[in-house]
Amino acid sequence: MQKNSIAPDGREFVLPTKEESILEKEKINQITEQQRKLGRKIVAVQGLGFVGCVMAVVIADAEDKHGNPIYFVHGHQRASVRSYWKVPVINTGEPPVRSSDKEVPELFTRCIKEKKNFRATWHNYAYELADIVVVDIQLDATKPYFGEAEKGYCDLSAFRDGMRNLGRFIRPDCLILVETTVPPGTCERVVKPIIEEEFTKRGIDIKKNPPLIAHSYERVMPGANYVRSIRNFWRVYSGINEKSKTLAKEFLTDILDVENYPLTELENTNASELAKVMENSYRATNIALTLEWAKFAEKIGVNIFKVREAIRKRKGTHDNMLRPSLGVGGYCLTKDPVLANWSMKAIFDIDDTLDVAIRSVNINDTMPLHTIELIKSEYPELEDVKIAVLGISYLEDLGDTRHSPSYTLVRILNEQWAIVKAHDPYVLYWKEMENVKVHKKLKPTVHNADVIVFAVGHTEYKNIEPEDLINMCETKPLIIDCSNFISDEKIKKYLELGCKVKCVGKGHINSLVA
Amino acid sequence: MQKNSIAPDGREFVLPTKEESILEKEKINQITEQQRKLGRKIVAVQGLGFVGCVMAVVIADAEDKHGNPIYFVHGHQRASVRSYWKVPVINTGEPPVRSSDKEVPELFTRCIKEKKNFRATWHNYAYELADIVVVDIQLDATKPYFGEAEKGYCDLSAFRDGMRNLGRFIRPDCLILVETTVPPGTCERVVKPIIEEEFTKRGIDIKKNPPLIAHSYERVMPGANYVRSIRNFWRVYSGINEKSKTLAKEFLTDILDVENYPLTELENTNASELAKVMENSYRATNIALTLEWAKFAEKIGVNIFKVREAIRKRKGTHDNMLRPSLGVGGYCLTKDPVLANWSMKAIFDIDDTLDVAIRSVNINDTMPLHTIELIKSEYPELEDVKIAVLGISYLEDLGDTRHSPSYTLVRILNEQWAIVKAHDPYVLYWKEMENVKVHKKLKPTVHNADVIVFAVGHTEYKNIEPEDLINMCETKPLIIDCSNFISDEKIKKYLELGCKVKCVGKGHINSLVA
Repeated sequence: MQKNSIAPDGREFVLPTKEESILEKEKINQITEQQRKLGRKIVAVQGLGFVGCVMAVVIADAEDKHGNPIYFVHGHQRASVRSYWKVPVINTGEPPVRSSDKEVPELFTRCIKEKKNFRATWHNYAYELADIVVVDIQLDATKPYFGEAEKGYCDLSAFRDGMRNLGRFIRPDCLILVETTVPPGTCERVVKPIIEEEFTKRGIDIKKNPPLIAHSYERVMPGANYVRSIRNFWRVYSGINEKSKTLAKEFLTDILDVENYPLTELENTNASELAKVMENSYRATNIALTLEWAKFAEKIGVNIFKVREAIRKRKGTHDNMLRPSLGVGGYCLTKDPVLANWSMKAIFDIDDTLDVAIRSVNINDTMPLHTIELIKSEYPELEDVKIAVLGISYLEDLGDTRHSPSYTLVRILNEQWAIVKAHDPYVLYWKEMENVKVHKKLKPTVHNADVIVFAVGHTEYKNIEPEDLINMCETKPLIIDCSNFISDEKIKKYLELGCKVKCVGKGHINSLVA
Repeated sequence: MQKNSIAPDGREFVLPTKEESILEKEKINQITEQQRKLGRKIVAVQGLGFVGCVMAVVIADAEDKHGNPIYFVHGHQRASVRSYWKVPVINTGEPPVRSSDKEVPELFTRCIKEKKNFRATWHNYAYELADIVVVDIQLDATKPYFGEAEKGYCDLSAFRDGMRNLGRFIRPDCLILVETTVPPGTCERVVKPIIEEEFTKRGIDIKKNPPLIAHSYERVMPGANYVRSIRNFWRVYSGINEKSKTLAKEFLTDILDVENYPLTELENTNASELAKVMENSYRATNIALTLEWAKFAEKIGVNIFKVREAIRKRKGTHDNMLRPSLGVGGYCLTKDPVLANWSMKAIFDIDDTLDVAIRSVNINDTMPLHTIELIKSEYPELEDVKIAVLGISYLEDLGDTRHSPSYTLVRILNEQWAIVKAHDPYVLYWKEMENVKVHKKLKPTVHNADVIVFAVGHTEYKNIEPEDLINMCETKPLIIDCSNFISDEKIKKYLELGCKVKCVGKGHINSLVA
């Protein structure tokens, strides 16, 4: 039975047949030969996810001093039901991701339709022809027990398969540049042995042709600076030998703005891999601290957001202190400390723990429980309590729900038999929680609500006037503000309108009425 | 028996007699009257320690727009054997602290000798005359068990005595401005009830005359910017009522550079007290993270200092990441998280813990054990091993030994019967470890050493050439570098000279010889 791959907008694509595969190989060959004649080097990008697809166009968009493209890019995505749709969608000139950054669709149009030096394919043959493979496979950490990140692990099997696939096809002098955030040690202790094994099977002498493997991590930020956060930003890299380092440096110099954002070379790939997960752990720890202190502040009449402003006046040392909130989401801060901690034991056999980082993940992951406590202080029994959750993405004014703290919030509220309605202007459907409808209109979301949770700081929510919201409700709901989305003036209005208000990190609310 | 108070330079001062006390009171009265006639307000500074003595001259140095001093300052220090010497020393125009900041002695000379609007006294009568009392009493946290900061507490008894003393003497309209770093809740729940009790005993109606208590914390940094870190830096303040806030604001506006460093008012003294200990906890946590990751890096061939440089390229979010080292010392980061954590239970009766902050203190406090592990990797038995420790202060190019990690290092090495010699160019004698001589010359310190520990980054140590050091030793000692004080080039030289080298946070040393 033929299964179709369905794009988020509903378009269906039939998976390619064997006949199409033969034609695709010929096409790849033909295009590649043409491109080589134009003097272009051939890049294959493995994985067209959140980072890979934009990285691919950034590479394709790179030009030499005469304004000619330096590279031709084969974007490779396996022909799976879940992801195959990306190939035909990209080849029409559309990005497979939604973004508030206008440069994203511009780059896709330019490289696919005008420069014609980027093309998506599902065929492994692209790897045989590549001078450089950029690895952007997704790699996640698994945390099997809620709030016990110390038991988290990383299932490398799909990643290993991807590497084995490369080892079977790539030329011996092809550079493998791993961009995926990986547990420290992965390039040296996972990728290298696999490639060596596959090379040896193919009769390649790995002493004469040691695999060329480098690691460089992007620091992508979703939102309006999506492309710039890849191209115009500091990069760190290293390689498993001198040649890998040199090739990685040349490649990154071609495609990134290294004049304004000079590259940093580290001594080995362990260092580069560690740097990535350490910088995100640093961030996760900073947040965890504010979460703990926010709870303390609440109990002693203090507004932690004002305290934070005061502390952030210390430029250079304290001005990056983050905001307490419903919790921490997204793809990086929630998993990177786990990758590092798991790597210690699993990859290096070190009997130790990254205690501060792991505890921080636990505090961040379980933080939505605090918002539930705030609800329970008014509704000790959640059964049949009508709760409207405003915002399910993990970032303001973005539609990204990956590891969103709203997920934890809604999951637990549902488990306790509350009646939850979710709203988000940026999310089409909730991939991680498909049984929950994402409302687009506020009124039906909040009508008759007992509790309204301001979970995410979407501009739309920050702009709501208390009178308007209460008119939509036709009740006097408990208002929960998870991260200073409601000003003191609005809090006063809600109180005057007969609502109760509870805020994460704000202990001074009683003093507003006194 | 008359006991004398001895200054650090050896000068002895006889404690004042009852007769002198009567004369002193008269003198205070006379001076104060004169000063009032000049239109000056009267300030008493309680405690002439590290912050109080400099704060006193900053206040005295403040001028109105016509260039006239606004305040006369009585610096108050109890006539104890330990501290009385400060009174006569200050009154000769000398600062009671050593500092690399030239402005410190300049200010003392100017205010004591030229402006003559600052004078030290031991007599409580100064409080009776004051319009404002600035509280700079020392307040420490006690950590009874090494590495168990969660059991730390704050003994407030001396602080309470100080407050009671004020309550007995001050005028009802006198502002008490607490600058001491205190457990959150102290102004409202400790100071206020004591002052109210003493006022009531004196027949003052506390409904008509509610005590005026404010809190404002300095962010003093020892070193070349000592004075500027008090006067030209952001300040946070609050008060227990509106009048206290207003008076504190007026006072701080008079004495600080609020044009360039605007004041931040918080809603109550809990908030101001919390802000101080939170900002230092933030810092302590940042360091703890790097310490954990430094150990990881060492084991996987990574130089964490290069990783740190790479991460710090991310301006605004990661550029304040601190350096791993022997451990964390000084007066603030080692105790402030403990004050906060203790306050939760002891002052607010909250059954919770500031887990991230407290764990961080434990990691920081026990970090010297890691340096001992590095030594033990070469000398599993420390008995009779000759160890030279270079640097005993807690900061580079400063002579401050308070809570120095070298203390922990030397204490434990001594307990394990190593033969330790300590060296520091900036420390006259080791107050916290009086039985250990502080060498001033390198050669006798390192001669015949089995191990040399670069514990602190004094410039003198960073500049040592390997050949010169080894010539002084006449051995081939194990070199331990606690915080990137020795460059890769120098490490290579030490290795060539036949030494072994171990470095905190550097796992790449083997690759330097390969």
